[in-house]
Amino acid sequence: MDKNKFAVTPPMGWNSYDYYDTTVNEEQVKANALYMAEHLKEFGWEYIVIDIEWYGYDTGSQRDKHQYIPFWKVEMDEYSRLLPCVQKFPSAKDGKGFQPLAEFIHNLSLKFGIHIMRGIPRNAAHAHTKILGTDKTANEIADPSNICSWNPDMYGVRPEAEGAQAYYDSLFELYAQWGVDFVKCDDICRMDMPSAKKEIEMLYQAIQKCGRAIVLSLSPGPAKIEEAWHYETYANMWRITDDFWDQWELLLPMFERCELWQSHVQEGCFPDCDMLTLGRLGKGFGHEWQCNFTKEEQITMLTLWCIFRSPLMIGTDLTLLDDWTKGLLTNRDVLGLLSHSAGARQIQRSEKKVVWCSKDTKENAGYLAMFNLEEKESEVPIPWEAVSQYGIQKNPGKELWSGEMAELQKTDAITIPAHGAKLFKL
Amino acid sequence: MDKNKFAVTPPMGWNSYDYYDTTVNEEQVKANALYMAEHLKEFGWEYIVIDIEWYGYDTGSQRDKHQYIPFWKVEMDEYSRLLPCVQKFPSAKDGKGFQPLAEFIHNLSLKFGIHIMRGIPRNAAHAHTKILGTDKTANEIADPSNICSWNPDMYGVRPEAEGAQAYYDSLFELYAQWGVDFVKCDDICRMDMPSAKKEIEMLYQAIQKCGRAIVLSLSPGPAKIEEAWHYETYANMWRITDDFWDQWELLLPMFERCELWQSHVQEGCFPDCDMLTLGRLGKGFGHEWQCNFTKEEQITMLTLWCIFRSPLMIGTDLTLLDDWTKGLLTNRDVLGLLSHSAGARQIQRSEKKVVWCSKDTKENAGYLAMFNLEEKESEVPIPWEAVSQYGIQKNPGKELWSGEMAELQKTDAITIPAHGAKLFKL
Amino acid sequence: MDKNKFAVTPPMGWNSYDYYDTTVNEEQVKANALYMAEHLKEFGWEYIVIDIEWYGYDTGSQRDKHQYIPFWKVEMDEYSRLLPCVQKFPSAKDGKGFQPLAEFIHNLSLKFGIHIMRGIPRNAAHAHTKILGTDKTANEIADPSNICSWNPDMYGVRPEAEGAQAYYDSLFELYAQWGVDFVKCDDICRMDMPSAKKEIEMLYQAIQKCGRAIVLSLSPGPAKIEEAWHYETYANMWRITDDFWDQWELLLPMFERCELWQSHVQEGCFPDCDMLTLGRLGKGFGHEWQCNFTKEEQITMLTLWCIFRSPLMIGTDLTLLDDWTKGLLTNRDVLGLLSHSAGARQIQRSEKKVVWCSKDTKENAGYLAMFNLEEKESEVPIPWEAVSQYGIQKNPGKELWSGEMAELQKTDAITIPAHGAKLFKL
Amino acid sequence: MDKNKFAVTPPMGWNSYDYYDTTVNEEQVKANALYMAEHLKEFGWEYIVIDIEWYGYDTGSQRDKHQYIPFWKVEMDEYSRLLPCVQKFPSAKDGKGFQPLAEFIHNLSLKFGIHIMRGIPRNAAHAHTKILGTDKTANEIADPSNICSWNPDMYGVRPEAEGAQAYYDSLFELYAQWGVDFVKCDDICRMDMPSAKKEIEMLYQAIQKCGRAIVLSLSPGPAKIEEAWHYETYANMWRITDDFWDQWELLLPMFERCELWQSHVQEGCFPDCDMLTLGRLGKGFGHEWQCNFTKEEQITMLTLWCIFRSPLMIGTDLTLLDDWTKGLLTNRDVLGLLSHSAGARQIQRSEKKVVWCSKDTKENAGYLAMFNLEEKESEVPIPWEAVSQYGIQKNPGKELWSGEMAELQKTDAITIPAHGAKLFKL
Repeated sequence: MDKNKFAVTPPMGWNSYDYYDTTVNEEQVKANALYMAEHLKEFGWEYIVIDIEWYGYDTGSQRDKHQYIPFWKVEMDEYSRLLPCVQKFPSAKDGKGFQPLAEFIHNLSLKFGIHIMRGIPRNAAHAHTKILGTDKTANEIADPSNICSWNPDMYGVRPEAEGAQAYYDSLFELYAQWGVDFVKCDDICRMDMPSAKKEIEMLYQAIQKCGRAIVLSLSPGPAKIEEAWHYETYANMWRITDDFWDQWELLLPMFERCELWQSHVQEGCFPDCDMLTLGRLGKGFGHEWQCNFTKEEQITMLTLWCIFRSPLMIGTDLTLLDDWTKGLLTNRDVLGLLSHSAGARQIQRSEKKVVWCSKDTKENAGYLAMFNLEEKESEVPIPWEAVSQYGIQKNPGKELWSGEMAELQKTDAITIPAHGAKLFKL
Repeated sequence: MDKNKFAVTPPMGWNSYDYYDTTVNEEQVKANALYMAEHLKEFGWEYIVIDIEWYGYDTGSQRDKHQYIPFWKVEMDEYSRLLPCVQKFPSAKDGKGFQPLAEFIHNLSLKFGIHIMRGIPRNAAHAHTKILGTDKTANEIADPSNICSWNPDMYGVRPEAEGAQAYYDSLFELYAQWGVDFVKCDDICRMDMPSAKKEIEMLYQAIQKCGRAIVLSLSPGPAKIEEAWHYETYANMWRITDDFWDQWELLLPMFERCELWQSHVQEGCFPDCDMLTLGRLGKGFGHEWQCNFTKEEQITMLTLWCIFRSPLMIGTDLTLLDDWTKGLLTNRDVLGLLSHSAGARQIQRSEKKVVWCSKDTKENAGYLAMFNLEEKESEVPIPWEAVSQYGIQKNPGKELWSGEMAELQKTDAITIPAHGAKLFKL
Repeated sequence: MDKNKFAVTPPMGWNSYDYYDTTVNEEQVKANALYMAEHLKEFGWEYIVIDIEWYGYDTGSQRDKHQYIPFWKVEMDEYSRLLPCVQKFPSAKDGKGFQPLAEFIHNLSLKFGIHIMRGIPRNAAHAHTKILGTDKTANEIADPSNICSWNPDMYGVRPEAEGAQAYYDSLFELYAQWGVDFVKCDDICRMDMPSAKKEIEMLYQAIQKCGRAIVLSLSPGPAKIEEAWHYETYANMWRITDDFWDQWELLLPMFERCELWQSHVQEGCFPDCDMLTLGRLGKGFGHEWQCNFTKEEQITMLTLWCIFRSPLMIGTDLTLLDDWTKGLLTNRDVLGLLSHSAGARQIQRSEKKVVWCSKDTKENAGYLAMFNLEEKESEVPIPWEAVSQYGIQKNPGKELWSGEMAELQKTDAITIPAHGAKLFKL
Repeated sequence: MDKNKFAVTPPMGWNSYDYYDTTVNEEQVKANALYMAEHLKEFGWEYIVIDIEWYGYDTGSQRDKHQYIPFWKVEMDEYSRLLPCVQKFPSAKDGKGFQPLAEFIHNLSLKFGIHIMRGIPRNAAHAHTKILGTDKTANEIADPSNICSWNPDMYGVRPEAEGAQAYYDSLFELYAQWGVDFVKCDDICRMDMPSAKKEIEMLYQAIQKCGRAIVLSLSPGPAKIEEAWHYETYANMWRITDDFWDQWELLLPMFERCELWQSHVQEGCFPDCDMLTLGRLGKGFGHEWQCNFTKEEQITMLTLWCIFRSPLMIGTDLTLLDDWTKGLLTNRDVLGLLSHSAGARQIQRSEKKVVWCSKDTKENAGYLAMFNLEEKESEVPIPWEAVSQYGIQKNPGKELWSGEMAELQKTDAITIPAHGAKLFKL
């Protein structure tokens, strides 16, 4: 299987983390899937992804002390494989795993994704649990000094141990049986532990063997630019930032990160700017809030993510979408850049302003994105000499957020609000 | 001017450093130019580049103690601009600079390049010399703590100082008058000093203003991958390694460096693997020697440089070329990858073997380069699944070093000598 | 209790590690104790220390794969406290712990020491075991991301957790009941984990509370010189090197380490050069060998350790002592520096030679140690100007290894064999 | 000569830098000397030290752009040795150097010190100036890549170059002729350049040869604790902090620095806390101000400097001393700790409070210094168990700043104002 065909354009979907943290349950997942099928699917949104700790008991119950309760009960089969906790996912009972939920989602013509942590459960290693397809046991492939610095569930696997590949193979065999379409593997992208690089290869091999086109997403970032070839060769998307949230201080460095990774966006290979922090957020974190970005900052985020062609994963609970946010997430012209633009390139970047261009792949047109990083409305000059190399054909063009036609002259500068952006097709 | 049009394909030429170090003189440059015009030009070779210290007196005379004699006499005009030392370049007398020599080279239908050090001469700063086009003097733009760690000639320039851009402008105004086609700026690519990044921009601006298409080459490496956008935007080529010499220990890491930079090879933008250390070398260093690479290692070097599409600069004295080396440098099929291949990509890399593929841009064909890094002859398997994505059309294909036709079957592995390479067009 | 009175002079004893690794058993410990009581005690040797893994089952049985078998059975009481494994220590049966063995050793007028790892057993954390004196359980004080990089037994303790001090208190309450005189705590001295600094304080508090004068030894090194005050305030000895073995490449840097720590040797405060790797070594490591040091290097090691006043712990099995080694370990004059010298100071250090001086505290005499670091016999000049500041009184003096009187003149240089040393009292 | 006899107790004096920066002149130096002789000498103050740039012309005239004007005129003799600029020091005319001024100061029974920069003048290197006592010239011993990062005057010297030691010898021969008693060498203590370590040794050798007891002070800090032996062996005092100024943020970390260096205070060896920033400050920096420390912070600074036994150098212009500041600088009891206390040791340090103790060397008494680091008045408990080890004999004792007798009971805590200190003799 050619993994680059699993995701020809950047994946678009919903992820449970930003709103639910570790607490999301089956009912909530279904509600989001139903909403997506009805209201968002036609705009390209298709993945429903359950994030971290679906296997854990009592998740969220010690939120004052722990995001991830250490040394706690997790659901696990006899082969050291984590299963959905039936407290949260009743349909998983009798060892059915995520199969029923995946089927529900597939019946809505959507795709189903899950999050996993790199490695093998600590509980399995201490209990010497079996591994499917080998006579080695969990303690023989687990590395006691290879841990995640922020989550206590797993031990990393010794890549050279007999049985290590068998373990990863057994995971994806199970996920293929369930009908999983997308796996976000965590504690692996940043390669905090040296084995991570080899474990990415093992994930790739396991997917190749499982016979199902499962998109592989790596987290958390920042990914290491000097390992770009490795990500491109073995994965479909990789996070280029640590967890992104709705703060300008986090949005600002995304311009530098996108500059860094711009030459690496290709079919089946997508540097990932992380979830869209829009709408209602944070309920599972214990203090639900409304997105802290100004409307202009939201437009800036989406403009950058779209012209760069990052995967897009919505972080809010979809059933709570307000009209403004829904409007952002259903702008066909803007979202269209994911599926029919290419060659995006930063033209200029200073502390005050940023300019990007790209080309449409379906018609003879180009895109021009202009960002004002200042705290006040500013005139951002168009660097025509560079922009014109993008084969700009249409003038007047269309500003895609407002939908208005814009007569841009060569000497023009564009007026942009504080922290805002304009995106022209021309 | 669009700097990407200055060098549409990777520059090919000769550079004085590897053979002459700091001692090359006018007669020697002319001899190399004549040889190139007669024997190499038809294969694409066209640049004649004079490397470091053409302005210095007595260069090479203290070779036991100093490669670059500190606190020594240099030739300089009243505007703080270095001129050719007439000891070595008699035609530069009467302030003519390199104009006569450039004319000689142009008359051979070749191009003329020079090396410069970042910054302004220390002598100028201490003497408070003038700068053309401003009333500021050298001491006002020189930064006394901004020096090169390995060469004593210059002070870095304060980018924010009034007169700094005027100084760089005045340099390129002079070089344009001389007829310079190529400038290799040293002590700048690795950005050892923080001002280097800004000085690259100042060089770019100076070239834009001078009105002549001067190719800008940055040295020494390794270039910083996180500054890729900056190099691409302001320069034509940038060194991805520190000084390269004829040792396997230096050739081996080039595979990793080429992996790192493979996505950054574009028209007008060429990551640079450094000079070809072939034939006779090192006379100016005081101990002339014959290239230490085995023949197989020489083929490995050229195969990698060519499929990667590095600029090619010959390091030996051309008049001393032996038949074997000349054969390497006049293989039309291999050198052709520089001008009519694209999309080169590493397919595999381990400690034992490396595989690259690319596509021909003129005809429906692909290239397959296979390298054996082992100390012994080995069978290197062809990863057909990945290779076949390169649209391989011709089977049997041609091995470009031997010229032999090769019937490659899907299950084939290729026998390659120790440290050797095969390059197929198919 | 004033911890500086627990060890007024540097502790001298035997440690099981260098010969037995993780495998030492009761019979072997007793045999070494008997030997020490009979042959070495009169020369100042008094501690019998059981090193790592006395609580572990099957230790040494997977030596080809693991020095410390991960996820394995350990002996532990209901309060998360490790107990001696009865496989190896039969007298520990019925919960008696090390009490019977300590009594045996005390009856020989020797002192008894044990090794512990920083933290609480991983098994206890996963099993939610109780902690004596608090209602908190092991999982509540263990930190899942605070581990030892080289040993899989424990989790570090969260210093701020309620119950953390109670846990350490409960350990030393038990050790005091057993009759432990010396605790070597491992994975703590180098402060690889940030909590280590606080855990040292917790160990100190636990010893203060337990009512028994237990010497606290910290391992492994190198200790951090910038934390010298902390070690001095809370511990009795701390390792200034990582594990020391019988290789000249490890002995050579000890001169630099001793220079670094020379101002920190005081009553109750001893920077520790690690075990004496003499005689037979390594049986438990699977390949018993004879000390790789030349006789001259052995003298160099002992001379440095003694003039510096490091604690001395013999690494070989005492029952196998050959005459030469025994001679080294029973040289009263040399060993006397530990108990009645002070103010040791490096006078000179170059790549070729080292000179130290110190003063006798009982009589009007000084010490002069001279080391030849060269690969050949050399003349090492005496720096009399500096040496004479040490109040040298006796000339002729005595060379303490040979026992010969030496008439040293002011102009003298001393002939010393390759890698050898001379130690004069004068 | 035994350099430890040059400064048996920590030097006390005045330094021109904090008030005058680079601008101090002969008249001002004399005024300060006269004031010291009349008002401060009896309290132990004796050094008059002229800080940086006494050889430079027009110093301070470009203060908006440069503290140290680059590429400017300096006074220098034919042997590459800097001389006082007669603009500022008229008595230096006719090559007399500082001899007349030193004589003036000696006639007041005070001692005379000067500041120098490590290395040889850049001007000398570029002009190939002679060096006394060798046929080598400045360019032959200067290292063009060995510079100071913050001052443009000098090149570092190649320690291995013939003539290098001769240069340093020639400097101190001149200083001995002038009658210099104290040399503060800058750009050397922190060892920013690798040669600095060797240059310290060369300074030591030059002093030994010059035949005059010249105290050697090294700057700037922080000194490297791992080089403690080197400082102790070759210098008399070395800065343990970068430039210290009157800001609480700089005073606070001095507690950590003093902890670090407490074991290294000995006769002739003084870790240096830097100048006392009291009274009027900063005129030469262009914006004269009154010390920003509160009175309590001033007491804290002096208490720490005195119990630690740092050298004391007054930074203000003495002729402007106000009564409060003068009172601080003439407290015989407090200043007495420099000459007759020893064994100072930090007892406790937290973010809130610090306690130090030391012993009197003349009488049976101890010292107790207590510091309140909090922003508010606090009760600081006395750690009697540790304090009593200092042989406290007198109770009631005396608080040395207030002069009041204090009846301290074992259960007492001391009330101390915000950022304040108490110093008891008891």
